[in-house]
Amino acid sequence: MKLLVEIVVKRKKGVSDPEGNTISEALQRLGYDSIDKVRTAKLFSIEIDADNLADAKKTVMEIADKVLANPVIENFSIIDIEEMN
Amino acid sequence: MKLLVEIVVKRKKGVSDPEGNTISEALQRLGYDSIDKVRTAKLFSIEIDADNLADAKKTVMEIADKVLANPVIENFSIIDIEEMN
Repeated sequence: MKLLVEIVVKRKKGVSDPEGNTISEALQRLGYDSIDKVRTAKLFSIEIDADNLADAKKTVMEIADKVLANPVIENFSIIDIEEMN
Repeated sequence: MKLLVEIVVKRKKGVSDPEGNTISEALQRLGYDSIDKVRTAKLFSIEIDADNLADAKKTVMEIADKVLANPVIENFSIIDIEEMN
């Protein structure tokens, strides 16, 4: 079956996020005082052919570890899996 | 109250995604034949002070429209709101 897997790659706590800081500062300048902190992350939507959900998860987690994320400074987690028509 | 809002900014359908295509090609070369297509998106985690959920949503949607996304080629949607301790 064909599945769409969404996986998020986020910086680990304590790892600086220059893009997030820049956005946060820009928002302050624009008058959005209620915004405290902005952190950025990447989301990957992956179309995969797999026999079942478990296989799809396993492959995507492997890909994330090897290709999508830098495990030294980033965490990743699957946030959604759905069957495609 | 202090809230953490997560908002995803995705390219609209039909808008090309060079980063996603490059990852997809790399995965093919690495032998991941089951992977069909990869699309990339951005996720922003925003800490915001607000009186209620509705106000927080409104502010974040405004920020997304003005600062985080390019509404010509991107869509955005809030995927999670939670109260912070």
